[in-house]
Amino acid sequence: MTVNHTEEDYGRLIVQGADQPGIVSRVSTVLAEQGANVVALDQSTSDPTGGRFFQRTIFHLPGLSVKLPDLELALGEKLVDDLGLSYRLVESKRHKRVAILVSKADHCLLDLLWRQRRGELRMTVPMVISNHPDLGDDVRQFGIPFFHVPVEKDKKAEAEKEQLNLLKGNVDTVVLARYMQIISGDLLDELAVPVINIHHSFLPAFMGAGPYQRAKDRGVKLVGATAHYVTEDLDEGPIIEQDVIRVSHEESVRELQRKGADVERLVLSRAVAWHCDDRVIRDGNTTVVF
Amino acid sequence: MTVNHTEEDYGRLIVQGADQPGIVSRVSTVLAEQGANVVALDQSTSDPTGGRFFQRTIFHLPGLSVKLPDLELALGEKLVDDLGLSYRLVESKRHKRVAILVSKADHCLLDLLWRQRRGELRMTVPMVISNHPDLGDDVRQFGIPFFHVPVEKDKKAEAEKEQLNLLKGNVDTVVLARYMQIISGDLLDELAVPVINIHHSFLPAFMGAGPYQRAKDRGVKLVGATAHYVTEDLDEGPIIEQDVIRVSHEESVRELQRKGADVERLVLSRAVAWHCDDRVIRDGNTTVVF
Amino acid sequence: MTVNHTEEDYGRLIVQGADQPGIVSRVSTVLAEQGANVVALDQSTSDPTGGRFFQRTIFHLPGLSVKLPDLELALGEKLVDDLGLSYRLVESKRHKRVAILVSKADHCLLDLLWRQRRGELRMTVPMVISNHPDLGDDVRQFGIPFFHVPVEKDKKAEAEKEQLNLLKGNVDTVVLARYMQIISGDLLDELAVPVINIHHSFLPAFMGAGPYQRAKDRGVKLVGATAHYVTEDLDEGPIIEQDVIRVSHEESVRELQRKGADVERLVLSRAVAWHCDDRVIRDGNTTVVF
Amino acid sequence: MTVNHTEEDYGRLIVQGADQPGIVSRVSTVLAEQGANVVALDQSTSDPTGGRFFQRTIFHLPGLSVKLPDLELALGEKLVDDLGLSYRLVESKRHKRVAILVSKADHCLLDLLWRQRRGELRMTVPMVISNHPDLGDDVRQFGIPFFHVPVEKDKKAEAEKEQLNLLKGNVDTVVLARYMQIISGDLLDELAVPVINIHHSFLPAFMGAGPYQRAKDRGVKLVGATAHYVTEDLDEGPIIEQDVIRVSHEESVRELQRKGADVERLVLSRAVAWHCDDRVIRDGNTTVVF
Repeated sequence: MTVNHTEEDYGRLIVQGADQPGIVSRVSTVLAEQGANVVALDQSTSDPTGGRFFQRTIFHLPGLSVKLPDLELALGEKLVDDLGLSYRLVESKRHKRVAILVSKADHCLLDLLWRQRRGELRMTVPMVISNHPDLGDDVRQFGIPFFHVPVEKDKKAEAEKEQLNLLKGNVDTVVLARYMQIISGDLLDELAVPVINIHHSFLPAFMGAGPYQRAKDRGVKLVGATAHYVTEDLDEGPIIEQDVIRVSHEESVRELQRKGADVERLVLSRAVAWHCDDRVIRDGNTTVVF
Repeated sequence: MTVNHTEEDYGRLIVQGADQPGIVSRVSTVLAEQGANVVALDQSTSDPTGGRFFQRTIFHLPGLSVKLPDLELALGEKLVDDLGLSYRLVESKRHKRVAILVSKADHCLLDLLWRQRRGELRMTVPMVISNHPDLGDDVRQFGIPFFHVPVEKDKKAEAEKEQLNLLKGNVDTVVLARYMQIISGDLLDELAVPVINIHHSFLPAFMGAGPYQRAKDRGVKLVGATAHYVTEDLDEGPIIEQDVIRVSHEESVRELQRKGADVERLVLSRAVAWHCDDRVIRDGNTTVVF
Repeated sequence: MTVNHTEEDYGRLIVQGADQPGIVSRVSTVLAEQGANVVALDQSTSDPTGGRFFQRTIFHLPGLSVKLPDLELALGEKLVDDLGLSYRLVESKRHKRVAILVSKADHCLLDLLWRQRRGELRMTVPMVISNHPDLGDDVRQFGIPFFHVPVEKDKKAEAEKEQLNLLKGNVDTVVLARYMQIISGDLLDELAVPVINIHHSFLPAFMGAGPYQRAKDRGVKLVGATAHYVTEDLDEGPIIEQDVIRVSHEESVRELQRKGADVERLVLSRAVAWHCDDRVIRDGNTTVVF
Repeated sequence: MTVNHTEEDYGRLIVQGADQPGIVSRVSTVLAEQGANVVALDQSTSDPTGGRFFQRTIFHLPGLSVKLPDLELALGEKLVDDLGLSYRLVESKRHKRVAILVSKADHCLLDLLWRQRRGELRMTVPMVISNHPDLGDDVRQFGIPFFHVPVEKDKKAEAEKEQLNLLKGNVDTVVLARYMQIISGDLLDELAVPVINIHHSFLPAFMGAGPYQRAKDRGVKLVGATAHYVTEDLDEGPIIEQDVIRVSHEESVRELQRKGADVERLVLSRAVAWHCDDRVIRDGNTTVVF
C-alpha cells in the first residue's frame, strides 16, 4: 500500500492482536461513528484459526487534530477494552523524526539524505551522529546537524550515554546506516524507539569475518542486503526488506563489496520509507509489510 | 493476498465502483449481519477524491451454500441499490473451469497442466483445444480431453463456431497458451467469459514481425512476457502480470526465444493462479491485483 | 558464452592452471598448427599476479574425430609438459550422459526431462534412479528407464552399491534433483564423475530442520535456490548458479515452498545446461562460469 | 569482464571486423612479439559463418607509454592491412573525460558524481552543462565546473554552438543525464565522440507524451530504463544496458516516476562504468558488452 496522504486531516490507524470474528467491522464502525472516511485499508491474518490479526487503515477526518482525543477514547474502549487488541494512531502530517548513525561509509547515509531532500521520505532528520568525523561536511551541506561521538575501546558506556543525551526525546526512530558499532541492550531499552539496521546478506550466510572473501571463495552468484529492526540478538531481528544483485567470477572482492553497497542503500531506503509510512508492523520476530 | 481458503463455507466477495465514504463499513456490516466473519480483506482506491473503489474480501460463513440467496439479496440492496456499486460473490470451493487453447508450442500448456496436477492452481481443465493435432498425446496423459479444431484460411468463422459449441456453458475462463490465432470480437462476445493471453514483451516494444530478431539487432538486454485479458484491440488489453529475464549479446535469436519461453510460462501461470483466486479485478483497461 | 556448436567437427578445449605470461598465445598457436580455427574464447584470471588461469575455447577442426589423438599429443606437450597446465578436450557432438536421482518431488525432474525433450539441454538421460517408486510412470513416458533402489535405514551401503552398479561406466554426470538422501564420500569417490545438487537457500541461511518455517518466522522477503557440485562437505560445494524469488507475509509456509520449488527447477536446469556445455570450471571450492 | 587494471603499463586493445580463421592467434602473436602479456581476454563472434568478430584484450607491457607507437605500427600492419580489421588501443591509466549534460532532474547526475568521487567510475568530469541554472550548486560542491547554456526556442543553433565550443577537444564522451533537449545530428557529427542517453522504458513501449500515465492506465507491472548510444534516430540507438523495477496498482503516476528514477540512475551508472572501461563495443545498431 503506497498510496499516501500526508495532507491535513488524514490519519493512519494500525491495529493488531489475536484474531477473532468482526474486527474489521468493529474498526470501520468506530471510525464511521467519529465521522472518518476510510480511504485505504490493508488487512491480514497469519492463520485463519487462532492466528494474529493486522490492519492498517488510512482515513480522512475533517478536524482530525482536534478530534484526536475523542477518537483515542473510542478506540481504547472498543478495541482495547472490548477485544484486547492494541492500536497505534498517527496523524499523516506528523513526519517521523529520524536520527541516522553512521561510521565512515557514506553510501547509505547520502542516499537517505538525498531522498529526504527530494521529498521521497516522509521524515525529518534532526541529527546525524558518527563515531568518526569524516562525513561531517557531507551531512552539513544538507543543513543537518552532525555530531561526532567517538567510541573508544573500554569507554563505550560513556559514548552511549552521550548518544542517549542527544537522541532521547528528540527522535522517533534511529537508523543505523552502516554504523559499525554494536548498540547495547541498555541503550536500546532507554531509547525506546525502533532502531533499523542494514547489513549485507548472502545465500547462504557466511558467518564471521570477511564474508565477501568467503562468498567469493565459494563462487556465490548473488550478493544481497537485509534491513531489519534491531533486537538484542545482533542481526537476528525481524526483517523489513531484502534484495540481491547478480555477481560473477569476474568480480573481485572489492567489486562484490561495491555491488553490495548498491543493494544496501536501496534496501535501507525502501525499509525507512515504509517504516515512516507505518507500513511495517512488527509482530514478535516477524513483520507484516503492507 | 495469497492466503487462500478453499474449504467448505468460505467465500470471496469482490466489490467495485465509484468511491464514496463508508463503503468498507457498509460491506463489513452486511457480512456481519448475515453471520459471516471476515478472514482477509484487501481494499484500494484509485484516487482519494473521485476515484474508483475496489475491495476483495474473504469470509467464513457456516452453511454458505444454503445462505447464498439471502446474502445475494442483502448485497443487492445495500451495495447495488443504495450505493450503485457492483459485486461478485464466489464460493471458494467452486473451482473455475478453465479451457486452454494452444497451437504447437507446449511450454505454457505443460506448465499449467503440471501445476494444476500439483494442486497449485484452483481450477479444473475440462478441455484443451488446438488448431494442430501435435499436443494431443501430452494433454491426454493428464486425463484431459483434447479437441483438434483446425483453422483453415477463409474458414475461420466455421472454426470459431465449432470452438464456441465446445466452450459455451462449459467453461468460466479461456486461456490462450500461445494460441497463434486471433480471436474475433464476435467469439469474444459470445463466449462472455474472461480470456487470458500471454505474449512476449520487450523494452521498448518491437512491433510487427520477427521481434526477437529485431530486439537482437538493437542489442536488448532484457526479454519479457505480458499476460493480459483479451479485448478486441489485439494485445492491448488490461495487464495482469509481467516479468523479464536478462540476456546478452552471446545469445542467438533462438536462445532469446527459449528464455522468452521460460518467462512466458512463469508469467502465464502466475496470471492464471491469481485469476482463479479472484485476485485480479478489471477496471476499464487497467487491473487491480490483490 | 552461450554460443554453442554441437555439429560435427566442433570441439571445446578447457585449460586451467597457474597463471603465467603467454598462455593464450600458446593455446592459439597449438590449435592453429593443428588446423583448428578458434570460434569463441573466454578467458579469465583470478588475480593479475600469482593467480589462477582459466580458458574455454570453442574451435572448428575438419576431421576432428580422426585428428583427436594428434591434438591431444600436442596439447600434452605444449600445455602440460611445458607450462604445467591441465586441460580437457571435448567433441561438441558427444553429449554428456546424465543420470538423475530423485525421491518423491517431481518439479526438478520433470523440468529437466521436458527441456531435454525440447532440445534445450545437450545431454542424454540413460536412467533415472529413485529411492521411491512414485515417479516411475512420469519418467517412462519420456522413454527413459526408471530404477527403484530403496534406501532402507542401516542398509544404505547396500543401496549405494546397487546405485554404483547401475551408474558406473554408464554416466558422465549425476544430478540430484531433490534426492533426499546423503551421498557418501565413498560413493562420490567410486563414481568419479561430477555430481550436481540443488537445495533451497535463504538470506541469511536458516540452518537445520524446517528452514521455510523459520524463514517465515523472521519475515524473510526472498527465498532462493543454489545449485552446486557435491563434495563430502554436505551443501558446501562450489556454487554453479543461484537465484531468488520475492515473497511476502501473505504467503503461508506451503506457498513459500511452492515458490521455492519454482526457483529450484529454474536454477538446476540452468546449472545442468551450463555444465553440459562445459561452461563451468571448478577450481578448488569455487567456480568460473563462462 | 570487470577485472580492471588501471595501473601504469596496462593497456586495452579492442579489435573488431569480419570474422575469419586465426584472428585470436594473430592478436596474441602481435602482443607477444612486442613483449606484452595478456591478462584478460573476451572474444565473441556474432555467427560462426560469415559473422562479425569482437575481442577485448587487457595486457601488461612494461614501458607501455614509450612503446605505444611501435605497437600501433605492428597492429596497423598485422590487423588492419593484412586482415581488414579495425582496432582501438587505450592506456588503462588514461581515464576518459566525460561531460554531463542535464536539465533540472538531479538523480542521474548526482549518482554519477557520487560514484566518480568514490572511485567507482574510471573517468574525469571536466564540466557539467545545463539548460537550467538549478543544479549549479550541487555540481560545484563536487569541485566540478558548471556551465549554464540556456536553450531558447528558435535559438537552438546558437545554444548548440556554445555547447560545442565548451566541449570540442575537451571531452571523450558526453552523457545525457536526463537532458531534456534533442541533440541535433549536426552537433553529434561535430562532437565526434560517443554520446550516451538514458530514458524510461516499458513493456511494451508507450510512445508519445505522458508514458507513465498511459502505462498506469493499462496496469503495467514493471517500469524500466534503457541506456543507449545516441544516434540521429532519437531513442533508437544501440542499447548498452536495461533494467526494470516492479510496480503495482497501488502506486500513483508520481510514484511510478520515482521508481523509474531509481532504475534510470542505476542503469545509466552501469552503462557509463562499462563504457569508460571500454567494455562496450558498438557494431552498427547493436552492442557487444564484455
